[in-house]
Amino acid sequence: MDREQFRTAAHSAIDDIVNYFDTVPERRVLPAVDPGYLRPLIPENPPAEGEAWAQIQEDVDSKIKPGLTHWQSPNFMAYYPASVTYPSLLGEMYSAAFTAPAFNWLCSPACTELETIVMDWVARALALPECFLSTSENRGGGVIQNSASDAIATMMVAARERRVRELVLAEGLQEDTMEYEERKMDLQPRLVAIASDQTHSSAAKGALIAGTRFRSVTTGLENNMEMTASHLREVLEQCDRDRLTPYHLTMTFGTTNTCSVDRFAEIKAVLQEKPAWQRIWVHVDAAYAGASLVADEWQYITKDFTEGVDSFNMNMHKWLLVNFDASVLFVRNRLDLTNALDITPTYLRNPYSDMGTVIDYRNWSISLGRRFRALKIWFVMRSYGLNGMKAHIRKTIELGNVFADLVRGRSDLFEIVTKPGFCLTVFRIKDPQASRLSEGAIEKDGVADSITKKVYELINSRGEIFITSTVIDGVYVIRVVSANPMAEEKYVRNAFEIIVRTTDEVLQGK
Amino acid sequence: MDREQFRTAAHSAIDDIVNYFDTVPERRVLPAVDPGYLRPLIPENPPAEGEAWAQIQEDVDSKIKPGLTHWQSPNFMAYYPASVTYPSLLGEMYSAAFTAPAFNWLCSPACTELETIVMDWVARALALPECFLSTSENRGGGVIQNSASDAIATMMVAARERRVRELVLAEGLQEDTMEYEERKMDLQPRLVAIASDQTHSSAAKGALIAGTRFRSVTTGLENNMEMTASHLREVLEQCDRDRLTPYHLTMTFGTTNTCSVDRFAEIKAVLQEKPAWQRIWVHVDAAYAGASLVADEWQYITKDFTEGVDSFNMNMHKWLLVNFDASVLFVRNRLDLTNALDITPTYLRNPYSDMGTVIDYRNWSISLGRRFRALKIWFVMRSYGLNGMKAHIRKTIELGNVFADLVRGRSDLFEIVTKPGFCLTVFRIKDPQASRLSEGAIEKDGVADSITKKVYELINSRGEIFITSTVIDGVYVIRVVSANPMAEEKYVRNAFEIIVRTTDEVLQGK
Repeated sequence: MDREQFRTAAHSAIDDIVNYFDTVPERRVLPAVDPGYLRPLIPENPPAEGEAWAQIQEDVDSKIKPGLTHWQSPNFMAYYPASVTYPSLLGEMYSAAFTAPAFNWLCSPACTELETIVMDWVARALALPECFLSTSENRGGGVIQNSASDAIATMMVAARERRVRELVLAEGLQEDTMEYEERKMDLQPRLVAIASDQTHSSAAKGALIAGTRFRSVTTGLENNMEMTASHLREVLEQCDRDRLTPYHLTMTFGTTNTCSVDRFAEIKAVLQEKPAWQRIWVHVDAAYAGASLVADEWQYITKDFTEGVDSFNMNMHKWLLVNFDASVLFVRNRLDLTNALDITPTYLRNPYSDMGTVIDYRNWSISLGRRFRALKIWFVMRSYGLNGMKAHIRKTIELGNVFADLVRGRSDLFEIVTKPGFCLTVFRIKDPQASRLSEGAIEKDGVADSITKKVYELINSRGEIFITSTVIDGVYVIRVVSANPMAEEKYVRNAFEIIVRTTDEVLQGK
Repeated sequence: MDREQFRTAAHSAIDDIVNYFDTVPERRVLPAVDPGYLRPLIPENPPAEGEAWAQIQEDVDSKIKPGLTHWQSPNFMAYYPASVTYPSLLGEMYSAAFTAPAFNWLCSPACTELETIVMDWVARALALPECFLSTSENRGGGVIQNSASDAIATMMVAARERRVRELVLAEGLQEDTMEYEERKMDLQPRLVAIASDQTHSSAAKGALIAGTRFRSVTTGLENNMEMTASHLREVLEQCDRDRLTPYHLTMTFGTTNTCSVDRFAEIKAVLQEKPAWQRIWVHVDAAYAGASLVADEWQYITKDFTEGVDSFNMNMHKWLLVNFDASVLFVRNRLDLTNALDITPTYLRNPYSDMGTVIDYRNWSISLGRRFRALKIWFVMRSYGLNGMKAHIRKTIELGNVFADLVRGRSDLFEIVTKPGFCLTVFRIKDPQASRLSEGAIEKDGVADSITKKVYELINSRGEIFITSTVIDGVYVIRVVSANPMAEEKYVRNAFEIIVRTTDEVLQGK
């Protein structure tokens, strides 16, 4: 493909992409394909000779698009959103053109420096405490990670290394000796990471990757699925009895199931109760809900992060207008990361890195090479401006309120199960035979579970809207969240009508 | 940014990108900026109101481009290449448009299914043994990882889990019991990963991430820096004496420093010598040189992978025309991966996954979400065709031969240090005072080291070409590799002239 063939192909692809976004609301949000649909449509082997772009683009249209789940559709109300916007797309184009696996500063200074600057922009936009800025005295800073899972696994490893190093050095051993390695290996098996049972599965997976144990803190509907001080203390005390060493705690701002917010202040107070607990690495996972912090009315939340929080991650690629991958991670002390992950061989050294005057992001992540992801964040923040970003958050939160009010308005059919918020409503279908006396408290109810599951499965099988279900504290629930850039009130109202209609259908069919 | 603003902006960006590629040969390959150049050029805070695209694009031109290291320049001869091509760029555009964190099949069936199909294409193109295909009876398959570092860390974790599980189950314990966890934690600290001292640093980093020990096998110039059976056996026997359990071995096809190839057949023979050694997970890291396997004349190498190899990774984003990130990883038994990494909570379940009829790639990697990276690989393989890919490999290997011959032709000045191959030449400047008697064997020589270092630093400081240096077996050397899509003989000859001229300058300046 030469220059002019590319120019023609790219212009055609751009028009196709614009057309895709224009028509996405009319497409079935969930594809009507069965597992294995694609293999018969694609040759078994790659072609020997090159093919023309027109043929490839035609196949995108006829073979790929019918198999896509349309996350940008206004009828997508499942999981949490994963957005893409036009300026973000422009960032991807330039990022690919300027491709450089910028594992150190010299590999492409602009890649590294723009990332540092833009991460400071993001920290300020979210009103994170000063300690997370790259310019802070405590040597904080931000880095773009592939995903929240990567960010959390990386924090687990850094936390493990910090905790064990402290313990071994306190015994008077020297690093880089065989005695040090032996003692580190003696201590490591006693380490345990802790998170609530509502924490994203990446916490358990991160602990697994780091080779450490994992314990979860029970939550319940009586506490709106939030991690509380008393439940955390129980787990910490059990660890003490089991001679385990807690080294990492995940506090979640917006859990995956219900968008609950752990009780940061009281949790931090518990950690002050014992010297060993004060040494636990505290990570805030704000993967989804963290985006709300761009709006002033939510920024009071970050006051709890001024002290006692080691790291914070948020996925701009969920609710904040930048496409995947744009997982921003901030640490209070970058040395905690680089001490853990820096393995610098000769061929990666350069005078600037050796002098410590530049950031080498390879020591901030599991990946060595990295894409120039700062561009798309920069483009989006400049194109929208802070006010545009705030407006997006406020508009979609209001859509969530509209939906929750609709659900409340049909209390004959539905029961809200956890406090709605951050665009998400979690509810179930009521068992029509159940006593009305239990109003207010959600009780386990096998009939309600079964009806709710039926309604959920029927709706998704029809593919008009896409929603998710889950089980919390033993209760089967439906989650509805509409927060991508195409979200609008008419789609939220339409979704509610579909849910009411399907519920009536299931109840009558009984 | 609305539809028409985007269309205009994107068309303008495309023209700018074409112009960038056209002018990249004339640009200084290394930017003339000092650390910190960018911060004064960018406002401290993001703008409150959105800005127009024209202003942003102008800043890309005036602030970003001057700080780029141009990996696509034909004067880029450092590290290994990191390529981008026009069809790959089109893949990135569509990937961003279709954004979906395809953590399970339902999240976007086309993303998952195209990846499986295209990984089979890649396996066939590289002549990998049948066992690595998704359609193999042994349940092999490929997955796209972010980078080789991610692939290798993931293999370490999978290998660790497989080895410990085998040991614990052999003792009669049941999974998911406290006794199992305790015994796993007893055994894990004895695990050790092994690789040669020429293996990429991601092996040591992977072992660190997995929380296990790491031992390296010595190599030397007398063996062309290849890992040999006898040196490996020494390390394995030492591990036995230290009561350590080797669980993972990296064999490298194309080491980072010199592109040496470990002696696969004899290494595999050593592993057959003891039952415990037969249980070691064998990984082939072919990150760079693996691309050569598309050319028939190198495919004999993969015969060694038919038996006794558990996994294989190669970075298409180095030498094979797809831009970063496109690290392809193949495993012989996908259950080794999913047994280790699957932590499936309710909200990630769907009927297709539960039935085991689809691949959920989240259990094949550290990341949960993932980009639609199969598109760019598909586009490149179709645009180039296999013959186009072979032609690229053959052309650049020939350029490497031209350069090596030029170096050989000036044996008065230069000494080739390791066997040239796969486009890379590793050499040093001779100490003009040294005896000519040692011809043939490379000896340590502080004067040669010092001259070579001076020449290297002078060349890179001038930024006309970009090369790398390293130290192997105590000898300071220069590495030259020209293998990106813009590489041409005239640039290789020009680089050689610069090296000769600078060498003369340094020798005369003494």
